[in-house]
Amino acid sequence: MKRILSALALSTLILSVRADEGMWLFNQPPRQLLQNRYQFDATDAWLGHLQKSSVRFNSGGSGSFVSEDGLLISNHHVGADALQKLSTKEKNYLRDGFYARSLAEEVKCLDLELNVLQSIEDVTMRVNAAVPKGADADSAFAARRKVIADVEKESMESTGLRSDVVTLWQGGAYHLYRFKRYTDVRIVFAPEQQIAFYGGDPDNFEFPRYDLDICLFRAYEQGKPAKTQDFLKFSPRGAADGDLVFVSGHPGRTSRLLTMSELCYLRDQSLPFRLASLKRLEVLLGNWSARSEENARRGRSSLFGVQNSRKAADGDLAALLDRNFMAGKSRAEAEFKAQLAGKAGYAGVPRAFDRISEAVRVLGGQAARYTLLENGMAFNSPGFGIARSLLRAGDERTKPNGERLREFSDSGRQSLELGLFSEKPFYTDLETLTLTDSLTFLAGQLGVSDPLVERVLAGKSPRDRAFQLVEGTRVRTVAFRKQLYSGGAGAVLAAEDPMIELARTVDSEARALRKVAEAQSEVMQQAQAEIARARNQLLGTTGYPDATFTLRLAFGTVKGYEENGRTLPSFTTFAGLYERAGQMKNRPPFDLPAIWQKRGLRPNLEVPFNFVSTCDIIGGNSGSPVVNRAGDFVGIVFDGNLQSLAWNYGFTDRQGRALAVHSAGILEALNRVYGARELARELVAGRRSK
Amino acid sequence: MKRILSALALSTLILSVRADEGMWLFNQPPRQLLQNRYQFDATDAWLGHLQKSSVRFNSGGSGSFVSEDGLLISNHHVGADALQKLSTKEKNYLRDGFYARSLAEEVKCLDLELNVLQSIEDVTMRVNAAVPKGADADSAFAARRKVIADVEKESMESTGLRSDVVTLWQGGAYHLYRFKRYTDVRIVFAPEQQIAFYGGDPDNFEFPRYDLDICLFRAYEQGKPAKTQDFLKFSPRGAADGDLVFVSGHPGRTSRLLTMSELCYLRDQSLPFRLASLKRLEVLLGNWSARSEENARRGRSSLFGVQNSRKAADGDLAALLDRNFMAGKSRAEAEFKAQLAGKAGYAGVPRAFDRISEAVRVLGGQAARYTLLENGMAFNSPGFGIARSLLRAGDERTKPNGERLREFSDSGRQSLELGLFSEKPFYTDLETLTLTDSLTFLAGQLGVSDPLVERVLAGKSPRDRAFQLVEGTRVRTVAFRKQLYSGGAGAVLAAEDPMIELARTVDSEARALRKVAEAQSEVMQQAQAEIARARNQLLGTTGYPDATFTLRLAFGTVKGYEENGRTLPSFTTFAGLYERAGQMKNRPPFDLPAIWQKRGLRPNLEVPFNFVSTCDIIGGNSGSPVVNRAGDFVGIVFDGNLQSLAWNYGFTDRQGRALAVHSAGILEALNRVYGARELARELVAGRRSK
Repeated sequence: MKRILSALALSTLILSVRADEGMWLFNQPPRQLLQNRYQFDATDAWLGHLQKSSVRFNSGGSGSFVSEDGLLISNHHVGADALQKLSTKEKNYLRDGFYARSLAEEVKCLDLELNVLQSIEDVTMRVNAAVPKGADADSAFAARRKVIADVEKESMESTGLRSDVVTLWQGGAYHLYRFKRYTDVRIVFAPEQQIAFYGGDPDNFEFPRYDLDICLFRAYEQGKPAKTQDFLKFSPRGAADGDLVFVSGHPGRTSRLLTMSELCYLRDQSLPFRLASLKRLEVLLGNWSARSEENARRGRSSLFGVQNSRKAADGDLAALLDRNFMAGKSRAEAEFKAQLAGKAGYAGVPRAFDRISEAVRVLGGQAARYTLLENGMAFNSPGFGIARSLLRAGDERTKPNGERLREFSDSGRQSLELGLFSEKPFYTDLETLTLTDSLTFLAGQLGVSDPLVERVLAGKSPRDRAFQLVEGTRVRTVAFRKQLYSGGAGAVLAAEDPMIELARTVDSEARALRKVAEAQSEVMQQAQAEIARARNQLLGTTGYPDATFTLRLAFGTVKGYEENGRTLPSFTTFAGLYERAGQMKNRPPFDLPAIWQKRGLRPNLEVPFNFVSTCDIIGGNSGSPVVNRAGDFVGIVFDGNLQSLAWNYGFTDRQGRALAVHSAGILEALNRVYGARELARELVAGRRSK
Repeated sequence: MKRILSALALSTLILSVRADEGMWLFNQPPRQLLQNRYQFDATDAWLGHLQKSSVRFNSGGSGSFVSEDGLLISNHHVGADALQKLSTKEKNYLRDGFYARSLAEEVKCLDLELNVLQSIEDVTMRVNAAVPKGADADSAFAARRKVIADVEKESMESTGLRSDVVTLWQGGAYHLYRFKRYTDVRIVFAPEQQIAFYGGDPDNFEFPRYDLDICLFRAYEQGKPAKTQDFLKFSPRGAADGDLVFVSGHPGRTSRLLTMSELCYLRDQSLPFRLASLKRLEVLLGNWSARSEENARRGRSSLFGVQNSRKAADGDLAALLDRNFMAGKSRAEAEFKAQLAGKAGYAGVPRAFDRISEAVRVLGGQAARYTLLENGMAFNSPGFGIARSLLRAGDERTKPNGERLREFSDSGRQSLELGLFSEKPFYTDLETLTLTDSLTFLAGQLGVSDPLVERVLAGKSPRDRAFQLVEGTRVRTVAFRKQLYSGGAGAVLAAEDPMIELARTVDSEARALRKVAEAQSEVMQQAQAEIARARNQLLGTTGYPDATFTLRLAFGTVKGYEENGRTLPSFTTFAGLYERAGQMKNRPPFDLPAIWQKRGLRPNLEVPFNFVSTCDIIGGNSGSPVVNRAGDFVGIVFDGNLQSLAWNYGFTDRQGRALAVHSAGILEALNRVYGARELARELVAGRRSK
């Protein structure tokens, strides 16, 4: 679904920033607002330090440096992917946790890439200038793709930094982001998943909470701990009720500026479809995992991902089914259009809304096939993903840089290869299970007698076909992948690998669907740019664009809220954790790890554990540091409450809250529960002991 | 979905009985076959005794009398509905089990109805004669409904027995079944659900198994234990490997005689839709249940039902996606049509297949709305079911008996009222949850701007609307229900109950959809009758009709099977149970109840626990007695293995097996684990000790 949402996330509307709203660009920070409301001066130095201390996990999440020796902190659930890939039946890092008492014991992640933002440059003029006026959508898309690839490649070659052109305001602006990359990242500390994700799926997105959702890593360069000039000072006291706090992280995607036609499409088609798929997968993985401990271990991080997405999507749909909310959105759009109608020079703008609406219709018409074939929902298996990458790499890499599918551009090559040649483990039984399920779903969606479905199944039942593909493919071997990748299209063809041949079977239709989607996204970006221009000229609104998994600054207050007549304080404590475990009779997922039940263990029960604030966040912000006015690390975001799910479409701080682990709680757990005193010392001192 | 499937379950095909196949009618038993293959003489006395010892649970399941004092045995999961309704937060019968050491301690079920088949009469001629030749589908349906209602009412009035006309051979025959009813049924013994459903959902439909899936009840008449002349002698030795055994029970529904157009509809539309709904519900109930122990208690039996159906439906779909299987079905149908083509007098029969195919198309076209509105999938709440019954009772009961919706006919009145006036508990938070979910699903399926959806939601979000309906309705009060039921349509209208008014909002469309479905079912029954005639005259095939939740006889052999290269023996033992618990570290759902872990407990570990046989069963057979040649009770069916799920569409005993609890295992558990020696004595003696 990702790309469909992406293609649709293209509009802007009247923006009135209220409360503690906003996921602000670091090059367009809300200085005046912070000055007026909080008498806080966000200086360049303060911002620059926070920016360079912030880390993006390319696997999907945020983090921050907390010592000059490359130590960084994120969430356990952000690190889960890396922990899972390193785990075996004998050594289950994800479940049992890990602590490296010396540098030598730190364990290198298989394919983790971290990005630290170095600079932002506005390239909107150059990008738009390259697109010929009046070109049809296909040509315009091609021209835009080419100039973006050029900009990225030039930047990469001149600076050596990872360089991504980011589309902001759904097409209203293009900024070039340059990142320092770290690919030698080692695990320093992870608690047991039981306490990191205490309360499990039932308590996910709930508050009060008691999750030690942290994971510490160390970035290395040339085999040595990276020297990180910018890192956050760790505050042993941490956040207090009523404090002004900031979140610096990477919100993945919001949809606050969508037009009504896009919102209705999400509500009526896209989300119901996506939810049904997530729930199907949840049942599949949940039951397979329950069959044995080893299944549970191997399915753990997939299952968590599915459950997490499902809860978020359920919240999304509920928000869009809120009549008052949608009526407000609809009214705002109508009022804006009415304003345009009277103004000379803007008569054409309402037609931009119509073009978006038409693009939504076109995309909606091919959404099922697109999602199944191009997004690969029909082929839910890691092997298929690799097979397709190999197939397409063979075809794409001979083309000029500016004409390739975006993921094969020169500037993205290093990241692509990092993933493609990862030594990550494969679980063939699980892969057969998910491939069987997704092929079954394909047959149900398109019908068994659809010609493509017939070719995909090749005369077999989904189960037999999945078995044949998973057994027969060689893509699980890294050497084989390297051989085909360097050998190009000829080598790929000669390999006669069944999974690659499956990818080939669907490739021409998948590419055709993608071509339509890309052209429509161009139509929407142009329409969007027109709307944005009119809005800025007429209303002079400033603000922040929808989230794009790039660095943003949010701010807010540490503050509890009312729910069902109860007042929830902003903090939980260690005492609350033990109460909750007692109340739930220590039964999974409310059971405490053995070390937390050890006799003689004496954590201070008054120490804060988790807390909430009104900072504006969304998925992708997981692991973001929470800092105070001084810029010190006072906590780490790990979740939002159920009410915050509606923030995808609009912010309100009546009940919605960001959830964070408290910095004092982190120190208390490290010192008094895990005996990780060396690590705690490094946090407080901001450097390793010599 | 039930009714849609019902309307579609209408065809017959060439039937070649092989292996130990068959769910035979008690009035058309496979005498010759048993004689030839097993030298077994199924005498009238043997059959009659087995028939009258067999019990149907109207809640959906089977059972049998096992003492002359009304004692009867079924599965724990068949009794679960009754156990759940009697449970409270303080006393959780379903989870913790129950044993009444005296008659006085036996607990009466709230709304359980048992039926014991007394006689079968073929009324095909009378039913068909009442339908005018050449009448259109609507009139034909009305005429058939009327004659069936007449037959049932006459029979009920003349015999005092519950009288149901059962449609067999998808319309090829109509038999009048007369049942003795028991409505005072008390619980005698239930083990903990943990051991009854040992291994939980992960092990459901798997073998080897270790489930003590039994529940004992006692039927009462006039406040005293019923004197039951016919009951099965309980065999302490039980079944042995290689034994010929029989199953007498109530298979709910099979689809072996469907035409290709019906099978393709199931595969491509009906099952994918049903599966998505089941998985959605499973996620909803699973996560809600995990939030607290009290949620888990209240959601338990719903969640089990959903998971059980989901696993069966997944198996159904896999069977229909088996290319060889479907090719065989298709070939058989083509061959039959080819045979017809050459025969004088049968030229019209192939058109009967076309009429079925056309009916499937019509039903498929309205299936989503039918399922949502008439089957009530959009209003998943016990309150809605009651509200609709009250609304329709008011409208229907003033009509002549033969013109009413079937569920309001005079012959069904007692059963309807038993359910309608049950003092069963309601869980308003759970009801709000499921109603919110189903209203959300409705909006996703039909679109928020569908006029009916707009009226249903009444300007509110699904969550707010569900809350308003559940809070506002009074249908949870039995006195209110009785008042409206006796007051008729006027009283129902005057009550202005929001849930009833919701039912009224959808009633005209729901009834219109049902009218179409009924007319199409008449078309299909007539087409079916024509095909059946041709088949019998041309091929002279005899056999058994698809399952109809009426009493059937199956037979087979106690026999293990091969799976993934392993040979699975036909039995498990108590030793195997303890091994499994050890292997799974006694973690849920593989944990043993405390009593099974008691120090000093000494069950004989060699005693058989569960066993498999080739008897032909399906859902509804749960609780069916397994008897030997002598007609003695040697076990009780509680499940089939995964491979048996394909039996919905065709029987093969290569791997498919029926699973049963062994009679010796039952005695061992009662005597040595539960100390229920009195009960064990009654089983062995066939009467209570005086």
